[in-house]
Amino acid sequence: MNLERFMELMSEGGFFYPSFEIYRSKAEVGGFYDYGPLGVELKRNIIEKWRKIFVYPYQDFIVEIETPIVMPKIVFEASGHVEHFTDAIVECTKCGRKFRADHLIEEELGKRGISIKTEGLSLEELDKLIRDYDIKCPVCGGELSSVKPFNLLFQTTIGPYSDNIGYIRPETAQGMFVSFPKIFNLMGRKLPLGIAQIGKVGRNEISPRQGLIRLREFTQMEIEFFFDPENAKCPYLDELDVKLRIIPEKDVVTGVKEPREFRPREAVEGGIVPNEWMAFFMGLATIYMNELGISLDHQYFLAKLPEERAHYSAASFDQMVYSERFGWVEVSGHAYRTDYDLGRHARYSGYDLSVDRRLTTPKEVVEVRVYPNPQRIREVFGNEMPKVMQAIGKADPRWLANELANKGRVIIDGYTITSDVVFIREERRKVHVERFIPHDVEPSFGVDRIVYVTLEHAYTEVNGKPLLRLPPDIAPIKVAVLPIIKKQEYVSIGRNIFRELSMVGVKAVYDDDGAIGSRYAKYDSVGVPFAITIDDKTPIDSTVTIRDRDTKAQIRVSMNDIIKVITDAIFRRISIIEIAKSMGLQLIIRE
Amino acid sequence: MNLERFMELMSEGGFFYPSFEIYRSKAEVGGFYDYGPLGVELKRNIIEKWRKIFVYPYQDFIVEIETPIVMPKIVFEASGHVEHFTDAIVECTKCGRKFRADHLIEEELGKRGISIKTEGLSLEELDKLIRDYDIKCPVCGGELSSVKPFNLLFQTTIGPYSDNIGYIRPETAQGMFVSFPKIFNLMGRKLPLGIAQIGKVGRNEISPRQGLIRLREFTQMEIEFFFDPENAKCPYLDELDVKLRIIPEKDVVTGVKEPREFRPREAVEGGIVPNEWMAFFMGLATIYMNELGISLDHQYFLAKLPEERAHYSAASFDQMVYSERFGWVEVSGHAYRTDYDLGRHARYSGYDLSVDRRLTTPKEVVEVRVYPNPQRIREVFGNEMPKVMQAIGKADPRWLANELANKGRVIIDGYTITSDVVFIREERRKVHVERFIPHDVEPSFGVDRIVYVTLEHAYTEVNGKPLLRLPPDIAPIKVAVLPIIKKQEYVSIGRNIFRELSMVGVKAVYDDDGAIGSRYAKYDSVGVPFAITIDDKTPIDSTVTIRDRDTKAQIRVSMNDIIKVITDAIFRRISIIEIAKSMGLQLIIRE
Repeated sequence: MNLERFMELMSEGGFFYPSFEIYRSKAEVGGFYDYGPLGVELKRNIIEKWRKIFVYPYQDFIVEIETPIVMPKIVFEASGHVEHFTDAIVECTKCGRKFRADHLIEEELGKRGISIKTEGLSLEELDKLIRDYDIKCPVCGGELSSVKPFNLLFQTTIGPYSDNIGYIRPETAQGMFVSFPKIFNLMGRKLPLGIAQIGKVGRNEISPRQGLIRLREFTQMEIEFFFDPENAKCPYLDELDVKLRIIPEKDVVTGVKEPREFRPREAVEGGIVPNEWMAFFMGLATIYMNELGISLDHQYFLAKLPEERAHYSAASFDQMVYSERFGWVEVSGHAYRTDYDLGRHARYSGYDLSVDRRLTTPKEVVEVRVYPNPQRIREVFGNEMPKVMQAIGKADPRWLANELANKGRVIIDGYTITSDVVFIREERRKVHVERFIPHDVEPSFGVDRIVYVTLEHAYTEVNGKPLLRLPPDIAPIKVAVLPIIKKQEYVSIGRNIFRELSMVGVKAVYDDDGAIGSRYAKYDSVGVPFAITIDDKTPIDSTVTIRDRDTKAQIRVSMNDIIKVITDAIFRRISIIEIAKSMGLQLIIRE
Repeated sequence: MNLERFMELMSEGGFFYPSFEIYRSKAEVGGFYDYGPLGVELKRNIIEKWRKIFVYPYQDFIVEIETPIVMPKIVFEASGHVEHFTDAIVECTKCGRKFRADHLIEEELGKRGISIKTEGLSLEELDKLIRDYDIKCPVCGGELSSVKPFNLLFQTTIGPYSDNIGYIRPETAQGMFVSFPKIFNLMGRKLPLGIAQIGKVGRNEISPRQGLIRLREFTQMEIEFFFDPENAKCPYLDELDVKLRIIPEKDVVTGVKEPREFRPREAVEGGIVPNEWMAFFMGLATIYMNELGISLDHQYFLAKLPEERAHYSAASFDQMVYSERFGWVEVSGHAYRTDYDLGRHARYSGYDLSVDRRLTTPKEVVEVRVYPNPQRIREVFGNEMPKVMQAIGKADPRWLANELANKGRVIIDGYTITSDVVFIREERRKVHVERFIPHDVEPSFGVDRIVYVTLEHAYTEVNGKPLLRLPPDIAPIKVAVLPIIKKQEYVSIGRNIFRELSMVGVKAVYDDDGAIGSRYAKYDSVGVPFAITIDDKTPIDSTVTIRDRDTKAQIRVSMNDIIKVITDAIFRRISIIEIAKSMGLQLIIRE
């Protein structure tokens, strides 16, 4: 594959290109990309395909929401991002340039022929590598500072008070956690419950240099899927006609590089994937990539080792897709976030985020109760008695009993409570309901990376000419309307067809400029699946030909059938050859 | 209209509600709203309808792009937002609370029965009002500080260098201006050219308190429409079957409150609207609101007076829609931004943003040329001659000639150039092309406000029960599947129908809980246009009834026809009664 030609096509064809080009020399603006007219359509089609696979079929228990991009600081204190969402940075003490420490070490040692993996290393370990190998500033040769953490949250201020800090969310996920109780109520207080969101996120990367693969601002599609860990059955698991290709944790440890194939249920039963819902979403993710044109042998799931996982995750798999430009690229992450996030938000907000579990057989529980001893309280506290009673009443009984057992005294609201002023009882009780915090699995997709790999996988060259074999339902422009030559009669028919397609919302292009062969080639190169040609027969019998991008087959159809044939071919995914056969139409090959 | 009941339905039905509810007591988070499951679908349908009216039919010259939300500082220096995008703020010198000055003055004087319009007043004028009326802090009664400007841009930092400032864009527009040369090239260097964008923007309001009407983060749909001011014809203007209701600038001045009706061309020819493209987009905006269910008498365009217009605008109209809750609300703004933005970006970026105009008759222009006088240069500068020649060559001739005429000398690259070392000539030349900066009209829509007014206009109560008459193609859920009673046979048929609808992506809900009448009422209240009922005939002849939300009419259809009938009724906007007639189906009324 000619990568340079491919990248040129991406920019010149209007798919994607670096943002703020006119200000390139005046501002540091790496890590931002624009989508041009074709890119916007492609991205939207890729997002809509995701909804069709992950959301619509399960709309009775997976719903989409939209929450803000800017969120108050406390949300990310609770989530752990203020503390943990950092990269290691070093600064040159001479020129002041800043570098991401792990990348710098790998690059500089790479130049010396030394290969080192820095993922998961602590600040101290990175620092030691810089000292041990005497790594200097790659630009000016200056001494490097010690390695420090750099928080990747984009920080801002909400409203006129400078201490009211907000951040651009680094994942859509926190929006779902924070609004879990609202959506749980709306959806009838039932589990499982999936909350999906598609939207922009920001990560203030230190020096992003990998195009759409590492952006400071990008689009995520995520589901936070809440379930009862004691009832984690997925009724759809065996419906999935797909195999998961996985490098499991133990293979990662022993250095095996070849994925193994599992049916989703096998992966759960073999202890490879921790629960059925996670295996289910990994199955859907495989199907999704496949529908975008990425074959099974160009994707697999890579288990993340504990030190490589995010702070919230008990188990993680990265869905990797092969890219000729970037090597294996993570297009989605599948994390078992357990009850970590809801638990943290419950603590930081003081809001109860647990839910009821109805027990099929009632359970006997031992409850600690603390009763005040009114007589002793009056003796000790006199007419402060009502306030002391209140103080005892609002304390958590189990905690109070523990404190008294361990320390003999505890201070509540300024009153020193001792063992003699209370009675502590253990009481047994049958309960039919217990409270728990739902567990969560998260399939999380990076849209921009998926756009990139979809385009790269679609790109090929035939007889030296670029051909973009995007699936017709994904392709940004569906049809090119092309008079075979620029003759007034053909032009006006062509323009009418184009206008009609436009009015019903079919993405199309009209072009009468140049030889028909070079126009075919032009629209092949940007992935237009069908070309309508107006030729000498058109004015006579009101027929046109429809040409198929990949096979070059052409069928001749009545002008009245254009929209039906095109939409069938796009949305029912039927080739125009099949359509021709079913309609008894003439099939011609002309190139 | 029962506004309280309506707002409760919006939240309890899952349309929209304040964000970060669990953190309400811990963080100041006004001006942020979530969309729940129904709100997300509704918003998406409203956006898609906009594309169908503004973009798809004109796809040969209006294209959509996507640019980043975070943009570098220089963009907003060029656009004028760093300087002008401010509100006036006052601070209480006692309690430290901050208030938006204009709102505070209007509210405080309002309490005293004094009505004052503060729009367009300067900081000094606002300050004078506070002193003259002795306005104090409404919370603690403290003395207020002087009125200061507060910039509404959300500020952040891009990358690890703290001086690399970025802002969250306050409008999508700047993305289109900055990438104009790229898109202009992509689209074949032709005018007119519309560049559309739909996306999030942020405005750091001082104290927003109007729900979806004034948000700190919201979604815009904008078109920057570039055209040649000397050829501003719109070929589609007379195709629009719509009248514009306008209060023109002169009526605003004289206090006329009643809009007048104009055909789009009349409005241009009468000097009411400054050009055809602006009138065209105002026509489309009227049609758009109408398709969302807002009748003509609930909308009009209000001309903005010069002091009320944004700094970039030579003429502006606000499209106003009536709201019972908020009064007249601006849902879109139509500004004639002229060449202001491209001109400013050309200046700040140093990038030529002008384009060619081919002249039908060639034009004679006078060009100033400066030629070096080699002999004099050798005499004065000796062997520095080549460098001096170069210095003269790179100077702008018109500027050089001016400087020499005025000052007699000019220093370039350290060399003092005097009149004697150059020859200055005026040369006449015929040109076939001239350069100009395109002019721009901007239709700009606030999606969240449109969501709100669409919902409010759809809301009514019939026999005391809420009914949400959203147009079927806009309604978030298209169909409710309801077994008439919860009988196993009906339930399994109902679930199958629901699953089938889900698999093809039709938004649906299944419900078998409670009396059929209360289920009908429940889904009427959230705008579901159709209800499929499984009844005693269903297991016998495989038919179901489809009930229409607004007329309560029912038709009986074969189970095989459900998807066809529903999708026809939704997307072809045909009532189910018409469908019944055309298919020869039985029409029944049952309630």
